[in-house]
Amino acid sequence: MFQYKGHFFGVLFILFFNALAFSQEKEPRVNQERLSRNLMELATFGKNAQNGSDRVAYSDHEIAARKFLMDKLVSMGLTVSIDYAGNILAQRKGKNPKLKPLALGSHIDAVPNGGFYDGNVGVMGGIEVLETLNDFNLTTEHPLELFIFTNEEGGVFGSRAIAGKIDESALKVKTASGYTNAEGVKRIGGVPEKIMEVKRPKGSLHAFLELHIEQGNNLNQTGTAIGVVEGIVGLKWWDVTVSGFTNHAGTTPMKGRKDALLAAAEFVLMVNQVATSTPGTQVGTVGRIKAFPGAPNVIPGKVVMSLELRDLKSAKIASLYEEITQKAQHIAEKTGTSFAFSPIDATSDPALMDKNIQALIQKSADQLGLSHMTLPSGAGHDAQDMALITPTGMIFVPSIDGISHSPKEFSTPKAIADGANVLLKTLLALDTTELK
Amino acid sequence: MFQYKGHFFGVLFILFFNALAFSQEKEPRVNQERLSRNLMELATFGKNAQNGSDRVAYSDHEIAARKFLMDKLVSMGLTVSIDYAGNILAQRKGKNPKLKPLALGSHIDAVPNGGFYDGNVGVMGGIEVLETLNDFNLTTEHPLELFIFTNEEGGVFGSRAIAGKIDESALKVKTASGYTNAEGVKRIGGVPEKIMEVKRPKGSLHAFLELHIEQGNNLNQTGTAIGVVEGIVGLKWWDVTVSGFTNHAGTTPMKGRKDALLAAAEFVLMVNQVATSTPGTQVGTVGRIKAFPGAPNVIPGKVVMSLELRDLKSAKIASLYEEITQKAQHIAEKTGTSFAFSPIDATSDPALMDKNIQALIQKSADQLGLSHMTLPSGAGHDAQDMALITPTGMIFVPSIDGISHSPKEFSTPKAIADGANVLLKTLLALDTTELK
Repeated sequence: MFQYKGHFFGVLFILFFNALAFSQEKEPRVNQERLSRNLMELATFGKNAQNGSDRVAYSDHEIAARKFLMDKLVSMGLTVSIDYAGNILAQRKGKNPKLKPLALGSHIDAVPNGGFYDGNVGVMGGIEVLETLNDFNLTTEHPLELFIFTNEEGGVFGSRAIAGKIDESALKVKTASGYTNAEGVKRIGGVPEKIMEVKRPKGSLHAFLELHIEQGNNLNQTGTAIGVVEGIVGLKWWDVTVSGFTNHAGTTPMKGRKDALLAAAEFVLMVNQVATSTPGTQVGTVGRIKAFPGAPNVIPGKVVMSLELRDLKSAKIASLYEEITQKAQHIAEKTGTSFAFSPIDATSDPALMDKNIQALIQKSADQLGLSHMTLPSGAGHDAQDMALITPTGMIFVPSIDGISHSPKEFSTPKAIADGANVLLKTLLALDTTELK
Repeated sequence: MFQYKGHFFGVLFILFFNALAFSQEKEPRVNQERLSRNLMELATFGKNAQNGSDRVAYSDHEIAARKFLMDKLVSMGLTVSIDYAGNILAQRKGKNPKLKPLALGSHIDAVPNGGFYDGNVGVMGGIEVLETLNDFNLTTEHPLELFIFTNEEGGVFGSRAIAGKIDESALKVKTASGYTNAEGVKRIGGVPEKIMEVKRPKGSLHAFLELHIEQGNNLNQTGTAIGVVEGIVGLKWWDVTVSGFTNHAGTTPMKGRKDALLAAAEFVLMVNQVATSTPGTQVGTVGRIKAFPGAPNVIPGKVVMSLELRDLKSAKIASLYEEITQKAQHIAEKTGTSFAFSPIDATSDPALMDKNIQALIQKSADQLGLSHMTLPSGAGHDAQDMALITPTGMIFVPSIDGISHSPKEFSTPKAIADGANVLLKTLLALDTTELK
């Protein structure tokens, strides 16, 4: 753990002025204009010609953005350090140093040609909450910790390290930057050899909160301001291989065929039927498909495709899978083919958000006059690993048209400020709430 | 045109002896044992470790096999030459040099890791017919021409040149050997620059006959000895592109999706339904498919797949295509996607076999006590291009299990000899028949 000291004396006067101006109001509220301006400044690090973000983890763009943020955090009077996994940690003292830290945070790395909101909103929203506390001269009971997690897009790397879920193999994985996680962590000031020491014991934090864009269309479509995340869905992947019989497409009559692609087509439709005919928010997707040998004039003898299932309950994923394999067997019998399922090691278990924190988020939204709905997160987040060591809550704000991982990703400044205000209010409520 | 002179004097005595031995019989019949032995000797050129054939066009294996065959043809007393397209032509004098030549032939090139029968049976069957004429000291009225066509598997190259259907672009095509057609033709003794001169005028031959393995399962399954080919099906290819909307498979609920692969799956099943629900022998195949971006956790926004339709009638292909595009439109509307069809330049028109020759083949089979059935050829053959310039007939013999283009390709010696006897009898009948 290395303490980071920026050059923050120059901004002390501004801080003082702000505190003076805002402390007159009773109820602390975030500064929408400042939050929006900060987000746009962060966006400049890695902005590309397509108006997207090339700020992939460990890239020069990310390193520059981290410097910008660490300087800002130091200037805000926080104690800034980088842990062995490269996570940035900014600490703010509480009134009672014996209380467990109350944490918040997200990430600033992007997928290649990604957007300016995924992760960034949680980091800048968190910083805005801390700035607002400064403005209003407020000190919480609990110490506060703001995390900027390492390489979220490449498998929630930094938060997994904190949850103690990293192993040697993860360090060797080559990331979108071209660097392995080990090389990348070193680039951003971590110490890959000591990454196991990053683990935080279960119960060592009071709670963790993450603000994030929804990356889906539920809030946007229903005109809802705030999403109260009930959990982050688990995900399982399989390779599905259909075996038929390769043959000449010209000389083999229709009725003599064992066309693996015909069976695969039925499978794709069946997965959709199974996923849509069961009540719930589960999703089932075939995203990848290849027919062998793959020529227009040859009947495919083999098809390999992916199957992905996601749900908030592992048991639900298991029962959907059971139904799909049974129905695949019927397709096999009907088409003279056979199906084989092989799990892919890219699965994650569902992570449920803390019920009490969900209630506090709802109450905060209500008090702010903001509409809200409870929903699962279909995407993975750092919160899923933080939930392994502490009660965790997630706040979603609407994504316009539900678009994410794209230069078209967008959330309005008002929506983001609403989310940051809910984050602030929930944080303050949590500060005085005993969880279980 | 280069005349080829081998070293044939050493075999003159054997020829003489054979002629003596067989000319006692009244009805000429091919020598099954010799035909089978010759086929097995031809198979040695390019036989690989999987017991398949690597004798692709223009390869060293093919060049060696061509030498073997040319020596044999010279030794049989024929005039052997290579035309500018690399086709081997063996000529045998007729009683009446003013009559148009009566032609027969096939090819000896194989697909990569192909079998020992595709093409070879027609070439060795043709040679056996000529050997039998020698044995029985028979001279036909018409001059006879035996063709061994260049690069059949790479798009009936040699016969297309004879039909005058070759253009410059075909010469530039890279073939399975790694050589372009131009390079390959040069390797086997042709002159690519003069390939246009290979064209034979329409009506310059009396007729053309090709013996071939069926490469399908119709004869084998029904236990029929001889297939009387009514025509070679035409073939059309399209690239079919389905456009939907790429989205996060985790955050996009099932009902909000525009999954291009879901629409493509319906398309694959629909093509099969259209092809099987119309009476006739048409076939429809989707052999190649790719989903974009092609990741397990992304809903495919685009799918590109192939569509192939084959039938004996161009009008039938057109009406099937019409029905398929209409039904694709319904799928598009239902799934919120769109379909685009783009023709691929690899099409061939149906080639009908001459009705009179079909009748002569049937009569020959009947006289030989061989069962026969009339059927289309689903695969392309040199006969399809020869049919453009002369009345053409094709004789099929059974392929065990209908397998072809594989080391498992097999036809029994008896079945091949039956086919060669039908070829011989039909040739002799044609020799004295005025066609139209």
